Amino acid sequence: MANNNQGRLRFTLHPVGIIKNEIEKPVLSATEDGIELTSHLKHTKEHHQWVETRVSEIEIYPEYDGILDGIEDFSHIMVLYWPHLIPEECRRLRKVHPMGRKEFPEKGIFSTCSPVRPNPVLITTVRLLSREGLVLKVRGLEAVNESPLIDIKPFVPKSHSPENVTVAGWMKKIHKGMDLENRGSS
Amino acid sequence: MANNNQGRLRFTLHPVGIIKNEIEKPVLSATEDGIELTSHLKHTKEHHQWVETRVSEIEIYPEYDGILDGIEDFSHIMVLYWPHLIPEECRRLRKVHPMGRKEFPEKGIFSTCSPVRPNPVLITTVRLLSREGLVLKVRGLEAVNESPLIDIKPFVPKSHSPENVTVAGWMKKIHKGMDLENRGSS
Repeated sequence: MANNNQGRLRFTLHPVGIIKNEIEKPVLSATEDGIELTSHLKHTKEHHQWVETRVSEIEIYPEYDGILDGIEDFSHIMVLYWPHLIPEECRRLRKVHPMGRKEFPEKGIFSTCSPVRPNPVLITTVRLLSREGLVLKVRGLEAVNESPLIDIKPFVPKSHSPENVTVAGWMKKIHKGMDLENRGSS
Repeated sequence: MANNNQGRLRFTLHPVGIIKNEIEKPVLSATEDGIELTSHLKHTKEHHQWVETRVSEIEIYPEYDGILDGIEDFSHIMVLYWPHLIPEECRRLRKVHPMGRKEFPEKGIFSTCSPVRPNPVLITTVRLLSREGLVLKVRGLEAVNESPLIDIKPFVPKSHSPENVTVAGWMKKIHKGMDLENRGSS
């Protein structure tokens, strides 16, 4: 904890592990001007469907030994990670076209799931397949290979699944185009 | 982004706003030895039920103007904040008794919702009541008054509510004792 030059607090995150998988390329690329799809929309949809089936390994660093104990009693976990391929200067952006698609008007970043954010702590809720010591296997983790791990929390429906939820119309349209299954990623 | 002395990355969080409410005291206190309930269990349950009904204001700092645009089209949001009253040295803990209750065996922190964690980015999913400029009103935010705000994301059931979820037996017992409603906090 420290103060910046406006007298406000700052906090330091120390990655606690690393994510290993076959996902080498993020769906969205980012520059100081905004976000863009890295491939044609059709391929993006295919990429998403491919990611849903991929198994990732989450390796916790040895100095955190013990921190996973009991996690195997949960079927789903929330994985918090840092999108390390997004340039630091993108943290200054305030609005983006959702999914980088210019046909949708720009929205404030806090109303989107953009990986570009002032504090880019991304969250994906995934199925926990197995644990072996300090290594977890999960399915459907959207993070690219070697993303630094920030935190893991158990997914608890009573706490994390509110009822009677409404979402923005533009987001419904995007999901419809992606044929998104009921799973977990932000 | 910087490297620490093990050559690993570190990341800096810059709070983007502040949470204002009537909650002055966290349910759990923390020391280097672990977490403890700050009051008798009966009062903890009453405190939780009281928090569920409280309205908090989330004030975004002026330099982030625009970042909330469109958020009013979502009924629920995920609020990421830093538990600023938890001492920094608690980040070294690896295991805790769930909810500080010694009758439950210690569990690894990643299998609990403890506010004590190596990177204490806490998440509560709440009902968005209103937006006025850079101020949001929400109900049921568990953060104590003046908690620094890290991020806000729209809550999207398709992404954040997996199905067929199982949770650990000890957590079910704790929830049963708390009469927890189906709402949102981690």
